[in-house]
Amino acid sequence: MNASKKSHCKIVDCTIRDGGLVNNWDFSVEFVQHLYNSLNEAGVEYMEIGYKNSPKLLKGAEDAGPWRFLDDDFLRKVIPQKLNTKLSALVDIGRVDENDILPREESMLDLIRVACYIQDVPKALELVNVFNSRGYETTLNIMALSNVMENQLLEAFELIEASVVDVVYVVDSYGSLDPNDFNYLVSKFQKYLPSKRLGVHTHNNMQLAFANTLISVEKGVEFLDASVYGMGRAAGNCPTELLVAHLKNTKYNVRPVLDMIEKHMITLREKEEWGYIIPYMITGMLDEHPRSAMALRNSDDKDKSVDFYDKLTTPEVLHSK
Amino acid sequence: MNASKKSHCKIVDCTIRDGGLVNNWDFSVEFVQHLYNSLNEAGVEYMEIGYKNSPKLLKGAEDAGPWRFLDDDFLRKVIPQKLNTKLSALVDIGRVDENDILPREESMLDLIRVACYIQDVPKALELVNVFNSRGYETTLNIMALSNVMENQLLEAFELIEASVVDVVYVVDSYGSLDPNDFNYLVSKFQKYLPSKRLGVHTHNNMQLAFANTLISVEKGVEFLDASVYGMGRAAGNCPTELLVAHLKNTKYNVRPVLDMIEKHMITLREKEEWGYIIPYMITGMLDEHPRSAMALRNSDDKDKSVDFYDKLTTPEVLHSK
Repeated sequence: MNASKKSHCKIVDCTIRDGGLVNNWDFSVEFVQHLYNSLNEAGVEYMEIGYKNSPKLLKGAEDAGPWRFLDDDFLRKVIPQKLNTKLSALVDIGRVDENDILPREESMLDLIRVACYIQDVPKALELVNVFNSRGYETTLNIMALSNVMENQLLEAFELIEASVVDVVYVVDSYGSLDPNDFNYLVSKFQKYLPSKRLGVHTHNNMQLAFANTLISVEKGVEFLDASVYGMGRAAGNCPTELLVAHLKNTKYNVRPVLDMIEKHMITLREKEEWGYIIPYMITGMLDEHPRSAMALRNSDDKDKSVDFYDKLTTPEVLHSK
Repeated sequence: MNASKKSHCKIVDCTIRDGGLVNNWDFSVEFVQHLYNSLNEAGVEYMEIGYKNSPKLLKGAEDAGPWRFLDDDFLRKVIPQKLNTKLSALVDIGRVDENDILPREESMLDLIRVACYIQDVPKALELVNVFNSRGYETTLNIMALSNVMENQLLEAFELIEASVVDVVYVVDSYGSLDPNDFNYLVSKFQKYLPSKRLGVHTHNNMQLAFANTLISVEKGVEFLDASVYGMGRAAGNCPTELLVAHLKNTKYNVRPVLDMIEKHMITLREKEEWGYIIPYMITGMLDEHPRSAMALRNSDDKDKSVDFYDKLTTPEVLHSK
C-alpha cells in the first residue's frame, strides 16, 4: 500500500555480523552461502558477513565462529564467486589490526564499517582513512546517539564532514528512539554533514525498527541496516524481509528471503532468542544498554520483568547512571 | 525519548474481545478480573470485555467462552465493583439483538462499538442510534478500509457526519497500511468528519501497529485500540504496554501491565499463537484477509511460507480477487 518508491536505498543485511552476537557466530558455511545467494537474488545490495577484528586484540573469544574474525583466504572459499551483492565487514576501534586489511583489489570485501562511541570519532576517522586509502567504501557508525550531548555531536560533525568517510550512520543502540527522534536526528545529520550520505541502524525493543527505517527513507537516508527475520542482539533489528517487501523497488524480490527464513531462520529461532521480549522492551523504554536484560534472560528469572523493572527504576539505580 | 505528551488519548484495551478470536474466548474469570484491575491501575481508560452479540444469531459458536456473548448478570459477578476503567463491548451487524441491550444506567457497559464493512454503514448507524438513545457512548469501526473505494467512503462520510455516533475508527483489518497510509486516511477522516472524534485499530502484520498508532496520535486521533502483549487474531494488535510506556502521560503506569504479562500472558502465548509470523506478514504485504494464513498455521505446512507466497501471487489467484 502506498509504499515509498524510493530507489535510492541500499540494504545492508547484517544477519551474520549482528546475528552472530546472538549465537557466538556459530553459522555453518552452508548457512552463510545460502544467505549470500538469497540476498543476491532478492536484490539486497550489501551483506555484512562478519567482523574484521583481530583475535590478537580480543582475548577470550577463541570459541567464536569464523565470522567474528574474518580471514580473506577463508572468505574466498565460502564465496568462490562474487555476485551482485557486495560484502561488508565491521571493525571496532582498538580491536582491528590495520596490517590484516588487504588492498581492496586483493580482498573479498567492498565496504568496511567502523563502529565507535562519540568520544572515539577521531580514532575512528583515522581507521577510515586507512581503509579509504586501500580502496574500500567506508562508513562511520556512531553508537548510542540517544546518550550523546549536543555539543559533543557538533564537534564530531566538524571532523566527520572534513573526512573522507562515504556514509555516516545514525545508530539507535538501545532501541529507545521513536519516529520523531529519527526525524530529528536525520535532519540534524543532514544539516551538519551536507557532503555525506547517511545510513540508519535500528533496534526493535519497542517494535519500531521497521517504522524508524521507513521514516528515515522518507527523509532521504540511503543505507538501511537490516537482518533476516530481525536476527540480532537482544530485540534484534529491522527485518530484511519487510524492507524488501515494502520498498517497492522493482529490483527487490521477497521470495528468496522467505526461502532463507523457511530453510534456516525458523529452526534457528527455536534454538536462539531475539526479538520483542519484555525485558528488552523495558531497557528500550528506559534508554539503556540491553546488557542487564540479556543477563536476566540467561537466568532462572528470565520472565520476572516486574522485579527487573523495579530494580532499573529505583532511585539508587537511576542516580548511579 | 522525546515521546508524544498528548494527554487527549484514550486507550481501549481489546485483549479479551480481540484476543478471544485466538483462544475462542477461553479466559478464566480470574484472568479477566486481574486484567481489569491491572488496566485500571495502569490508567487505561477502557477495557473491551467482549462481544455483545446474541448466541441466537450466531450459530455454531456454542463452545465459545462467555466473553463472546456478554451477559449483564454474569458481568456484574465478574466486576462487582466498577473502578475508573470503563467497560466496552463490540457488536457486529446482524448478530446483535437490540432487546439484549439494557439502558446504560442498568448496565455494566459504558461504550458500545459497532463494527461493519463500508456497505453496512447505514445499518450500523441504525444500531448506533439505538445504543445512543439508551445512553451509551458509541463508536463506528469501519473495517477493511484498505479495500474501500473513494466514492464509497465519501458517501459513508455524509451519513456518519450527520449521525449521533461519538467516535469513528480507522481500522487496518489486514495490517497492510504503513504510517504514510495512516497519515493519509486520518487526514481524510478529519476533513470529512469535522464533528467526530477519531480512533484507530491497527494490526501488526508488518510490525507497524505501534508506529501507525503513534503517527495517528500525532495527528490528533483520540481513541487507541491496543491489547496486552499484542494479543489478537493473527498478527495481533498494538501492544498496550508500549502505549502506556511511551505516551508520557503522567496518568499512565506501565508496571501493572508488566505484571499482567508476567502473571498471565507469557504462559498464554506458549499455548496460543499470535504476533509477527511470516504467513501473516505475507497476507499483510499483499493486503489480504489473514484467513488463508490462519488456515496454513493450523496445518502441517505451517512454516512453508514460500509455497504459500507462490499460491497467493499466482495470476489465477490474483485475478480471482
